[in-house]
Amino acid sequence: MAQTGRAGRQPASYAAPVRGVSVTDHFFGRLRETVRTRMLPYQWEALNDRVPDAEPSHCLENFRIAAGLAKGEHGGFVFQDSDVYKWIEACAWSLAWHPDEALLSRVREAVDLIAAAQCPDGYLNTYYQLTAPEKRFTNLLNNHELYCVGHLLEAALALAEVTGEEKLLNTARRAVACVRRHIGPEEGKLHGYPGHEVLEMALCRLYEYAGDEEALSFAKYLLEERGKEPLFFEEERKRNGNRFYWEDSAFRYAYCQAHMPVKEQTDAAGHAVRAMYLYAGMAEEARLTGDEEMAAAAQRLWESVTRRQMYITGAVGASAYGESFTYDYDLPNGLVYGETCASVGLAFFAERMLRLHPRAEYADVLEKVLYNGAISGMSLSGTEFFYVNPLEAEPKRDALVEAFRHVKTRRQPWFSCACCPPNLARLLTSLGNYLWMTREDRLYVHLYAAAEGRVTAASGTARVAVRSGYPWDGRISVKTEVEEGEVTLALRVPGWCAAWEVSLDGHPVEASLEEGYLVLPALMTGEHEAVLDLAMPAKAMTADRRIRADHGKLAVQKGPIVFCLEEADNGPDLYELAMSPDAPFYVETCKGELAGMIRVRVPGYRVYDDVPKRETPALYHPAGALRREPFTLTFIPYCAWANREEGEMRVFVNRL
Amino acid sequence: MAQTGRAGRQPASYAAPVRGVSVTDHFFGRLRETVRTRMLPYQWEALNDRVPDAEPSHCLENFRIAAGLAKGEHGGFVFQDSDVYKWIEACAWSLAWHPDEALLSRVREAVDLIAAAQCPDGYLNTYYQLTAPEKRFTNLLNNHELYCVGHLLEAALALAEVTGEEKLLNTARRAVACVRRHIGPEEGKLHGYPGHEVLEMALCRLYEYAGDEEALSFAKYLLEERGKEPLFFEEERKRNGNRFYWEDSAFRYAYCQAHMPVKEQTDAAGHAVRAMYLYAGMAEEARLTGDEEMAAAAQRLWESVTRRQMYITGAVGASAYGESFTYDYDLPNGLVYGETCASVGLAFFAERMLRLHPRAEYADVLEKVLYNGAISGMSLSGTEFFYVNPLEAEPKRDALVEAFRHVKTRRQPWFSCACCPPNLARLLTSLGNYLWMTREDRLYVHLYAAAEGRVTAASGTARVAVRSGYPWDGRISVKTEVEEGEVTLALRVPGWCAAWEVSLDGHPVEASLEEGYLVLPALMTGEHEAVLDLAMPAKAMTADRRIRADHGKLAVQKGPIVFCLEEADNGPDLYELAMSPDAPFYVETCKGELAGMIRVRVPGYRVYDDVPKRETPALYHPAGALRREPFTLTFIPYCAWANREEGEMRVFVNRL
Repeated sequence: MAQTGRAGRQPASYAAPVRGVSVTDHFFGRLRETVRTRMLPYQWEALNDRVPDAEPSHCLENFRIAAGLAKGEHGGFVFQDSDVYKWIEACAWSLAWHPDEALLSRVREAVDLIAAAQCPDGYLNTYYQLTAPEKRFTNLLNNHELYCVGHLLEAALALAEVTGEEKLLNTARRAVACVRRHIGPEEGKLHGYPGHEVLEMALCRLYEYAGDEEALSFAKYLLEERGKEPLFFEEERKRNGNRFYWEDSAFRYAYCQAHMPVKEQTDAAGHAVRAMYLYAGMAEEARLTGDEEMAAAAQRLWESVTRRQMYITGAVGASAYGESFTYDYDLPNGLVYGETCASVGLAFFAERMLRLHPRAEYADVLEKVLYNGAISGMSLSGTEFFYVNPLEAEPKRDALVEAFRHVKTRRQPWFSCACCPPNLARLLTSLGNYLWMTREDRLYVHLYAAAEGRVTAASGTARVAVRSGYPWDGRISVKTEVEEGEVTLALRVPGWCAAWEVSLDGHPVEASLEEGYLVLPALMTGEHEAVLDLAMPAKAMTADRRIRADHGKLAVQKGPIVFCLEEADNGPDLYELAMSPDAPFYVETCKGELAGMIRVRVPGYRVYDDVPKRETPALYHPAGALRREPFTLTFIPYCAWANREEGEMRVFVNRL
Repeated sequence: MAQTGRAGRQPASYAAPVRGVSVTDHFFGRLRETVRTRMLPYQWEALNDRVPDAEPSHCLENFRIAAGLAKGEHGGFVFQDSDVYKWIEACAWSLAWHPDEALLSRVREAVDLIAAAQCPDGYLNTYYQLTAPEKRFTNLLNNHELYCVGHLLEAALALAEVTGEEKLLNTARRAVACVRRHIGPEEGKLHGYPGHEVLEMALCRLYEYAGDEEALSFAKYLLEERGKEPLFFEEERKRNGNRFYWEDSAFRYAYCQAHMPVKEQTDAAGHAVRAMYLYAGMAEEARLTGDEEMAAAAQRLWESVTRRQMYITGAVGASAYGESFTYDYDLPNGLVYGETCASVGLAFFAERMLRLHPRAEYADVLEKVLYNGAISGMSLSGTEFFYVNPLEAEPKRDALVEAFRHVKTRRQPWFSCACCPPNLARLLTSLGNYLWMTREDRLYVHLYAAAEGRVTAASGTARVAVRSGYPWDGRISVKTEVEEGEVTLALRVPGWCAAWEVSLDGHPVEASLEEGYLVLPALMTGEHEAVLDLAMPAKAMTADRRIRADHGKLAVQKGPIVFCLEEADNGPDLYELAMSPDAPFYVETCKGELAGMIRVRVPGYRVYDDVPKRETPALYHPAGALRREPFTLTFIPYCAWANREEGEMRVFVNRL
């Protein structure tokens, strides 16, 4: 199957992701295989309502009804169509590295059905088509018509890029054209924008793929119109009597980032998934149009997210209410929402920032999310999922106390709102797109997952192979076979790394550090091997002192992997365990369910106030002496939590 | 005005509260005067919809409309009538210690209006009378008809006891008779009980006041029917299609303590105010009927509340959702609900347990609630109130984060659901009833608020005067002038007290300790002075090690008073402050707004991880050295928090 990705259409000063990279990595390989062999087939069954004992998804049936091929009523959410689109996108990326005629024919079946369901004027949204065709585009605030078109376009572009088949893309372009006939700056059109962003990103991608200037200018319009006074969503409510679910919330229109024009926004706010998709779209549009004001806004929001509102796992969205951001440094470990989709969205945002400007800070976050808070959303078996990714789990509390009931301590087989699993699937199957970028004469290696591919820089072409034992081992080999001209390697030094050595062809080499990347001398024709050795000791981490929830606590990290304590290894009452940052950290290989991973053992203590029992057991008593019982704390990778028996978990542990 | 309280009708082995005690105490005197001179008049205006800039309460207007004296529609909640009843009750108790013809005439005006509004058949609930008279008694689960009758009866009994005027009591008895005609064990009647308890307690009191056996047996019925299968509330829903607001909650019918028969209940559960009123009623009924099974259930629930689910301030109800209990040792300091009414209810429960059996443990809780978690619901000015009484306040979080938005960091002038202020008013105005009890030949002194009164024990009578500087000073003088026979003093040794001395008429005296009370030799005719000197140092307290929220933390307590840190004294970021339990505690007199109180200053530290700023300010970084800056922590009494500028507050502080 041909990789038909076309040339990017942005100025050369920006970075271009390398396409067609083949991921040979063991860590991600296992997850990707699980997605390919279990999730994608399982989801096909789910989309077809053929999973025994599961509520029907109605997904494909909705399209069949809309196409006149079946009778019935619309089922599921207003955004139900997007599950099909995300599944197609995930399949498309998977076909790029694992051709599969059977899968392709399922995809074609879905594509045909979608095309058949489309209205003659291009409109496509089975919810409105089947329930209230006269009401289309009357509730952009709450309903997800533009969101669905965005995902349709993303799927169509992936499928076209990977297979060269453009049938779905034609459907998507007709759907966009229909949207555009109703929405835009022209008089008589709705001056609206999506209640849930994603179309902005997708339109930028359409421009890149097909050179469609109209798509880019529409993306720009959607971004720039958002949040302007008088507020479209307010006007729409007055006109159509729509409900606003967040009327009494503290965030109100910030829920959908419409509280002010996007270029004026400085603080990540509202629904975290919506925010991530918006910010990624802003970065994308800034790059493609050269809009420096938009780029500056994207950078400010990046800083707001990653320097003030992000968990150590890469989770974002501290509050379950509105699945939303709250405010700077408010990062409670147990109440957290940390939706899997929001972490996936943060990966999108990081990738767009890297393309704007290759800076290790962005790749650090991309790496953090990929190895921790995103993949924690999926069991090792690939069949069970978390919507919410807490940094502290207490099964009893999380079952009984309403404020915590969004936190599950066992992964679920599927969700009625099945956004997260396919989102994770499309991220993992497209992982090859995230690893490397070219910019002028340089090949930027952002991530050290083992991979191979052919790289075309401005100055030359090369075959490149990265080998590593990442994320467990920090020694990375980058072999290049320069075929033409010259290529310069820019190897990222992760933010977590305090010491490294780099050699070229077996000899130490002078390499300048530019924005977190080691820039090696230009490589001329022939074979070369650069070896980067990143010191990767397990170590104790602390949070910024303004994060109240983490005061007096430590987390354990080794390389990009964040660890956690689980009851399975440590017994209950994890809140009594404590350790010193100066304790020895013993790194061991995991056995059993977690084989292939490493764990960290740290001698510490169980600490408690040793008060003698009294006759009347009072709940509160004069402070006694602190008792410290030696206790060895066993940490496992956070991404692998909740794969054994249900129990407590925590990332941050008391500091001695 | 005569005190016409009649003889209790229970076996002599139970304790009887001493009525007609005059409270001369400075600490409570100020609060009681505030209630009398500010709250009661203010609430009269509120009941009459005469408070400028406030939403009308509709309270008296509803009665006027029901009486045919005005035209209009019902306004306010389904339990709106109870605000009037609670106001009358508070006034009645206040009239006992401060005769006031003007107030009495207002009360009579309300009493006349209530009587006029009553239906010919005795039914009385303005909500149903004015909105759906045909639907009375069709939704005991959610609506508050029986609750309102309960409060009516409580008010009527107080008024009758204090003034001898029984007009309201006649109204109340007719209302009870109407309820009884519809509800009860007989065939053809509803086998129901109140969705919100209080009527049980009130019926017991009616029995005690008037010897009404039917009232007692109805109370017993309401208690014993509750939670039986098939569940009345379920049947009622099926029959009448009522909504159940807690269908998807973890607690469901435990919300109103109807998840199982009350005699089988072992864990405090559901809505905390409902629970307190039920448990108080159970203890009351057990005493009056001699039902040992019911007494044992009350004792189990007492232990569940006070040994496993109570905050150090006496707050109960850990969760805002359902204003409810959660589970053992789940006592988060910031998420807490701790409704003022629930603490008031806990005082009722404690008082009933004391009457069942005078045991210092019950009085300890009564004292804890009175001096901390109940009165914290009211500003020192008596004009602003808290519904929720947190142990940790963070204004920004509590304003912005949904899970905390029930926590206010400024008291409010009044509430649309105005249950708490009048509940506090009736507790404080009736404080004299809570101080002392007689049992056989003994006078039990539970609380050391300064007070005077005439005591009739089985063995004799005496005039008694308690003098103290309580709660700031632990030296207590109890002067007795035995008029007839002999009286034995039983003086409580509070659970918080580790050392005491007791003397009689200037000489050390042998006193046995029985269930937490020092039992002195019988006092014969003449004047005596017992002096009890309770050591009352400020000290560091820790919580039971199973309370996760308080792990590694200390609270400061001196005598019954629990302290807290406020931003007004300590600046922001209280979470960084830490102290050792062994530090010296300096006790000082407060100045300014808090004059008359004491504060505690403790040399401690501000502790944080001293990490050098990096170029890219990462949120998480390798642990640095802990830095400890000396910092003197200033604690003020918890009951007085939020009387100065808005800011952070916390009761539990980090332990070094």
